[in-house]
Amino acid sequence: MKTLQSLMARSGEPLGAPLWASTSEQIDACAHAAGEAFVDWSCSNGAARAALLRGLADALESDRTDLVALADQETGLGTARLNGELDRTAFQLRRFAGLAERGAPFDVLDDPAVAGGPPAGHPAMVRQRVPLGPVAMFSASNFPFAFSVLGGDTASALAAGCPVVVKAHNGHLLLSNRVMDLVQKVLKAQGLPAGLVGMVQGSGKDVGVRLIRHPAIAAGAFTGSTRGGAALQAEANARPRPIPFYGELGSTNPVVALPALLASKGAELAATLAGSIGMGCGQFCTSPGLIVLIDGPESDGFVQLLSTALAAQNPHAMLTPGMRQAFDAGVEHMLSAGASPLLREAGTTEAPRPFLAQVDAASFIARSALREEVFGPSSLVVRASTLAQVLQVLQAVGGSLTVTLWGADDESSDTRALVRGAMAIAGRVLFSGVPTGVAVTAAQQHGGPWPSSTQPMTTSVGDASMDRFLRPVALQDAPAWLLARGGRPC
Amino acid sequence: MKTLQSLMARSGEPLGAPLWASTSEQIDACAHAAGEAFVDWSCSNGAARAALLRGLADALESDRTDLVALADQETGLGTARLNGELDRTAFQLRRFAGLAERGAPFDVLDDPAVAGGPPAGHPAMVRQRVPLGPVAMFSASNFPFAFSVLGGDTASALAAGCPVVVKAHNGHLLLSNRVMDLVQKVLKAQGLPAGLVGMVQGSGKDVGVRLIRHPAIAAGAFTGSTRGGAALQAEANARPRPIPFYGELGSTNPVVALPALLASKGAELAATLAGSIGMGCGQFCTSPGLIVLIDGPESDGFVQLLSTALAAQNPHAMLTPGMRQAFDAGVEHMLSAGASPLLREAGTTEAPRPFLAQVDAASFIARSALREEVFGPSSLVVRASTLAQVLQVLQAVGGSLTVTLWGADDESSDTRALVRGAMAIAGRVLFSGVPTGVAVTAAQQHGGPWPSSTQPMTTSVGDASMDRFLRPVALQDAPAWLLARGGRPC
Repeated sequence: MKTLQSLMARSGEPLGAPLWASTSEQIDACAHAAGEAFVDWSCSNGAARAALLRGLADALESDRTDLVALADQETGLGTARLNGELDRTAFQLRRFAGLAERGAPFDVLDDPAVAGGPPAGHPAMVRQRVPLGPVAMFSASNFPFAFSVLGGDTASALAAGCPVVVKAHNGHLLLSNRVMDLVQKVLKAQGLPAGLVGMVQGSGKDVGVRLIRHPAIAAGAFTGSTRGGAALQAEANARPRPIPFYGELGSTNPVVALPALLASKGAELAATLAGSIGMGCGQFCTSPGLIVLIDGPESDGFVQLLSTALAAQNPHAMLTPGMRQAFDAGVEHMLSAGASPLLREAGTTEAPRPFLAQVDAASFIARSALREEVFGPSSLVVRASTLAQVLQVLQAVGGSLTVTLWGADDESSDTRALVRGAMAIAGRVLFSGVPTGVAVTAAQQHGGPWPSSTQPMTTSVGDASMDRFLRPVALQDAPAWLLARGGRPC
Repeated sequence: MKTLQSLMARSGEPLGAPLWASTSEQIDACAHAAGEAFVDWSCSNGAARAALLRGLADALESDRTDLVALADQETGLGTARLNGELDRTAFQLRRFAGLAERGAPFDVLDDPAVAGGPPAGHPAMVRQRVPLGPVAMFSASNFPFAFSVLGGDTASALAAGCPVVVKAHNGHLLLSNRVMDLVQKVLKAQGLPAGLVGMVQGSGKDVGVRLIRHPAIAAGAFTGSTRGGAALQAEANARPRPIPFYGELGSTNPVVALPALLASKGAELAATLAGSIGMGCGQFCTSPGLIVLIDGPESDGFVQLLSTALAAQNPHAMLTPGMRQAFDAGVEHMLSAGASPLLREAGTTEAPRPFLAQVDAASFIARSALREEVFGPSSLVVRASTLAQVLQVLQAVGGSLTVTLWGADDESSDTRALVRGAMAIAGRVLFSGVPTGVAVTAAQQHGGPWPSSTQPMTTSVGDASMDRFLRPVALQDAPAWLLARGGRPC
């Protein structure tokens, strides 16, 4: 049997005793138990789902001090941030509790019979939704609470009526196990089966592949790199019975800043942007990795201000040694593709220094290597000569979780074109502030065209994320007893 | 350059002069023109979309006599059916006109700002949808109007704001070209670009592959075989930028008939079912290819009645010689997998005779060859010994557009279990009547788990089919001018 070792992010030193990696038999048993749990959980009512989700939120909060301390050791993200993330995680568990309680997963579209032959006449139809089945949930490195064991994917899947098998992230193994212990206590206290939320762990890709290919698994949910997500999606598609796979992948999150606004608010915006690039050591899927400017003195000045503000940032240790190495490799890759460094300093073995580079729009459009995400406190300034070229830059990006437009407050043909260009490639378009920080709310859309997600019509944050796990079923001429039950046979 | 030849379905003889297959340059030009048309069409308002869709419906109807005559020659489906199908096609064009006119593609979810910090506080968010871009639409063989040039995929894509490039089906090339001429006249009359609805044609897979891989294409819509759909989906996923691919594929559409109902209404149901199996020579995606019965005298009697009723059916010629040959091969395949023939007669070169076979549930569950769709007037009776075994049979089917349950009118633990089992694998569950005939209405769900469709969360028939071509975008802190335009920058 293989073992796994948790490491302290700030020192790279081992933390705690080694853990066993899940064996193939354990993975299979976990998926099977989720399948068994699905039988009853798919029939649970909103009150039962709400009770579980609230119980899980309460459990997280009751163990807050120890959880945050452990998470801080494993991830180095700092207790302030981690406390906020735990708040968010509890908030979204309770938000989905409310959705389930108010009956959102059980919504019915009633379409009464219309007399006469087709096409206008039709039988009585009722559109209902059914939960997909057990969800294989792949935890993220960078959100040890909010996109991990009890994160948004788990909350939305449970609210939809689906069991979850978590693939723990190796970057916070002890935390994942501790949260899983809490989960099991809550399940037991509520008389629910242990298999309703299971967990597997392991290094390499074997564990994840075995999980996503297990016949009992009905969907995949993933937050991580484009490469990892694409590989798992290919496995989901290669099953004898392909299943939906929801991957939230890489994103460069362009910020377009127009000269007029830079002229009046350049210093403030530079400070804001530098803070967003450096925050959490840049380890956010919405980290602004691309700054698109139009040539001119305002942009020149802004680049100078930004470079200075960024130099004043002190990024903390990265989540794992592998990510720290990947950051340096990403920077090298970008420079060898032709970007000119504006700010480049050696960091420590654990913590990088912020990196800023610059390139002209034509090169950016021509070279795909410049368009790859560098995970960490890095950003690339792209200098365009015209608004038309800005639009070409956005088109070259092709897909992003967000685009931020600074200076589009007034209507003009330019700002209209810019908004169109942004909406064409992003799931979320911001008109002020920075893309980091994703509101858990009704209208959120966290997911955009490839490579930012595998299913751009869906979101992994916000109320609509539950829709990923509910499949529509039309009931034709349903009998009275079934209609009286809201189209639910159980 | 390659040529194509239309054939008369009833004789296999050539119809008309050969046609040129689209060259690579023509395919590229078509996709490019659709991309150019997208710029304005994505900005069109509901009135413009409604005017186009209604103009297309009117054009179809104004040329009805000649279109139906031509379709009848090429497909052999008969003028009664083809007139009805033309009615349906015009109906759905007008239905999507109404949806566009009432603003369905422009729906906005307003989520006002909540004061305070996260997680409860959040900025103002507005959720809007944007059309994906040009859709590559692969026509079906079996619906020369309703799933072809001006079929449901085209109607829903145009209503959503997306141009369409049609891949004409080789089974009705002359009809496709004639309909395309009408389309071009309508586009011209309304001052719309020719590229808004384009068409390519060719044999083999090269034309379709080149189309789905073209950078200007933003989504695929397909109705046809599991094999063809899976191949095109793989191409869509293998693009540098993967795109959504909506495939409506093969389906066996189980009909479960419980003994009590068979005892009282067996003769009537046998006649109804035989009619559904034989209708249109069985060339429907919803043709009932599987009849699941519980052992006993009622089921024995029903099988006898069904066999007799089916023997009285006179299926017409199949759509193409290739399908006629595939039918015989499918029957052979099923027999070699262990099914016992109940009704098997030699047909003509063009028209098969209805085929009925029987197998025990255990064999059906064990052998995947028995679960494959045989396209044509064929059905397989599966004999189960218990209700539990019926549920196992449904589980083995795994995915189907429909499941029909006869005899579930009263609530019991058996009927509840049966409805659950049916909803777990199907997009539509019927409680009376037959699955052939798919209502174009608000609550329709035409699409289920694999292999019945590639995206089981979506439908290719009914109002929700438009959602396939609209991607959500959240606008954060949108400026007043953009909100005043309903979140649409153009």
